[in-house]
Amino acid sequence: MNNNTADLEQYMENLGRQARTAAHLMAQFAPDEKNSALLKIGQIIDSEREMIQRENARDMQQGKADGLSDAMLDRLLLSDARIDGMIEGLQQVATLADPVGEISDMRYRPSGIQIGKMRVPLGVIGIVYESRPNVTIDAAALCLKSGNAAVLRGGKEAIHSNQAIYRCIQQGLREAGLPESAVQVVNTIDRNAVGMMLNMPEAIDVIIPRGGKSLIERIASDSKIPVIKHLDGICHVYIDDKADLDKALNIAINAKTRRYGVCNAMETLLIASGIAQSILPALEKQLQDKGVELRGCERTRQLSNQEMVAATEEDWSSEYLAAILSIKIVDDMEQAIAHINQYGSQHTDAIVTEDFSRARQFMRDVDSSSVMVNASTAFADGFEYGLGAEIGISTDKLHARGPVGLEGLTSQKYIVFGDGHIRS
Amino acid sequence: MNNNTADLEQYMENLGRQARTAAHLMAQFAPDEKNSALLKIGQIIDSEREMIQRENARDMQQGKADGLSDAMLDRLLLSDARIDGMIEGLQQVATLADPVGEISDMRYRPSGIQIGKMRVPLGVIGIVYESRPNVTIDAAALCLKSGNAAVLRGGKEAIHSNQAIYRCIQQGLREAGLPESAVQVVNTIDRNAVGMMLNMPEAIDVIIPRGGKSLIERIASDSKIPVIKHLDGICHVYIDDKADLDKALNIAINAKTRRYGVCNAMETLLIASGIAQSILPALEKQLQDKGVELRGCERTRQLSNQEMVAATEEDWSSEYLAAILSIKIVDDMEQAIAHINQYGSQHTDAIVTEDFSRARQFMRDVDSSSVMVNASTAFADGFEYGLGAEIGISTDKLHARGPVGLEGLTSQKYIVFGDGHIRS
Repeated sequence: MNNNTADLEQYMENLGRQARTAAHLMAQFAPDEKNSALLKIGQIIDSEREMIQRENARDMQQGKADGLSDAMLDRLLLSDARIDGMIEGLQQVATLADPVGEISDMRYRPSGIQIGKMRVPLGVIGIVYESRPNVTIDAAALCLKSGNAAVLRGGKEAIHSNQAIYRCIQQGLREAGLPESAVQVVNTIDRNAVGMMLNMPEAIDVIIPRGGKSLIERIASDSKIPVIKHLDGICHVYIDDKADLDKALNIAINAKTRRYGVCNAMETLLIASGIAQSILPALEKQLQDKGVELRGCERTRQLSNQEMVAATEEDWSSEYLAAILSIKIVDDMEQAIAHINQYGSQHTDAIVTEDFSRARQFMRDVDSSSVMVNASTAFADGFEYGLGAEIGISTDKLHARGPVGLEGLTSQKYIVFGDGHIRS
Repeated sequence: MNNNTADLEQYMENLGRQARTAAHLMAQFAPDEKNSALLKIGQIIDSEREMIQRENARDMQQGKADGLSDAMLDRLLLSDARIDGMIEGLQQVATLADPVGEISDMRYRPSGIQIGKMRVPLGVIGIVYESRPNVTIDAAALCLKSGNAAVLRGGKEAIHSNQAIYRCIQQGLREAGLPESAVQVVNTIDRNAVGMMLNMPEAIDVIIPRGGKSLIERIASDSKIPVIKHLDGICHVYIDDKADLDKALNIAINAKTRRYGVCNAMETLLIASGIAQSILPALEKQLQDKGVELRGCERTRQLSNQEMVAATEEDWSSEYLAAILSIKIVDDMEQAIAHINQYGSQHTDAIVTEDFSRARQFMRDVDSSSVMVNASTAFADGFEYGLGAEIGISTDKLHARGPVGLEGLTSQKYIVFGDGHIRS
């Protein structure tokens, strides 16, 4: 569809208008109405499993013909287990507390007015993502639950899968009595659709890009709409000379090897020089047993039992997302903090120490969205933090920082109660 | 200074770098160090009163020569009373609670980690403003107190006044042992400096424009940096047919006539048809006694005792900032809400009613940064809300909504405590 630009523009404008109208309605639905829609969508996906997998097979076939990598094909596949996961996700979001309408901090002022805040939806959320079609459901569920309307734009490789899922969402919304345009999935593979989305501030309130760094950077730079974005995850663990050795070892191994391809994995290990000799041999052995390639600073290499690749300046600012770890020995915590603030990506950084004052200083001075003491960076995750679900992890400072759940899709307005109060 | 673009670019880049460095340091100062700087700046301004007023006289003279309006010249003037106000402002900000480092919501998770949030400065705040030189002090004080560095760009009419104030700020910072570049006032009247500021995302974290709508719109559209902005204040009062007549009358008169040129003044009055006949005569009389010009919808004009100008479509979306009021009679609250959401500016809107359910629905359905029940829109103000001070009123939805005080100049990061916890 939409072979020419004017048609596409009209299509996108119409879609934006419908989203705005739906958003006004969505803000008014009660929790049980939204939950019922989430559960119905899950039931429909379950009963339409065959249709969804048939459409997914078309995408898979096209993907193979287009020479997609095995990793990309794997992300594209909607196996039974993934469809089960989508349904469970919907059920789980339905059980979460509804953030909308929450009133907090109502206080009387000397003037006699009573003032506080009420949590409200943001309005219309635009989400641009790549090849995983299950994001369509995850994103739709979180936007619905938080009382927002959503405009979703998935990858072109997943167009048939996404449209199949979209039909289930629409049917679920209809059956639950919610506006069908509360969720819209852009039905075109024309790349210009994304550019148009980013230029619709009157229709879309915030853009959330999900995918590789280049996609996110491009969107952040082109968007006329505020973007909640997640760039690198260059996470550090700093082992202080006052660290408990066992805790340090466990945390470092877990932070690096639990999963390699995730944004909260440790990429650089910093070790205080006073403790390096005591911990490096055991650490090196365990990491090498797990097949992790080590790249060390000069001092690390001198202490090492074997040949170790020299870490270059580039290593300190690399997000490997792989079984590679750079190691640097620092004089003290100040040097560790300076390294993190210079090379890190303000994602997640941890200190291992038993020293109270150092823990406190590290927490204050490391400027990252999650700062941890004696815990693995692997905990940086919406579920682990108790948000219930996560639409992404923000490395921005404004609005939402760190894992973004339902609350990050809402805003607070002021409410004022009076009894005929006027200002003097 | 800075007559050519390359020089200006270098000057701005240097200024940005210094701001970033200062911001890292500022995040670490204790409350009493920051407060001492605020008080010292106040003392220096007091003792440098003569110098400041001499420099201000140069701006006034130039302004008269350039034919500035009386209103603009008045805004530019640093009378003794205004300088007193600046000093009091500094003292008052020093007494406010320090938002930085506040830890909240620390909760244990099933995994055993304990997670919560810590309030931290945003980093570097860029503020672009127009002719009032006292904004230099207000903005500097709030940025300092919230642990941020500030880059301030005032109007060219106030360049000498701003630089005089800037010298006092620098001396105060120096004497208190804070980095001098924690506050920098751009020292050039070259308009390109603003464009460069908006293009320094590596140096500036958020831009706050203060001034007329056209300045703010231009900045929001040009900025590569997130903007906290305040556009129109088209505020409404809706008098419901279940309103108490006395409260309604008082609130409507106060919201319109307390001050005309302010963003929280009522610009359109909506009246339920069921109560219009009872309240309109008294209202009309009081408003006309105060010299307010009334522009009514067809039904209002029919009920009116005298000739009334017809309100046009343009009136409903006008921020008069003057002794003018448009009046519309609506069938019911739903119509009032629809009118507000269509023509309003999401600033401040109030209902007057004794009906509990309607009050509740109005609060939920009016999508504005402040929604009031039985109180005058004139209360929409940082001081009245108890924020202590205000850098502006945001009509945005992301990050900060409504009056923006110290908290709006901060963000929250996650902190995680463990005892060697690793993720399974």
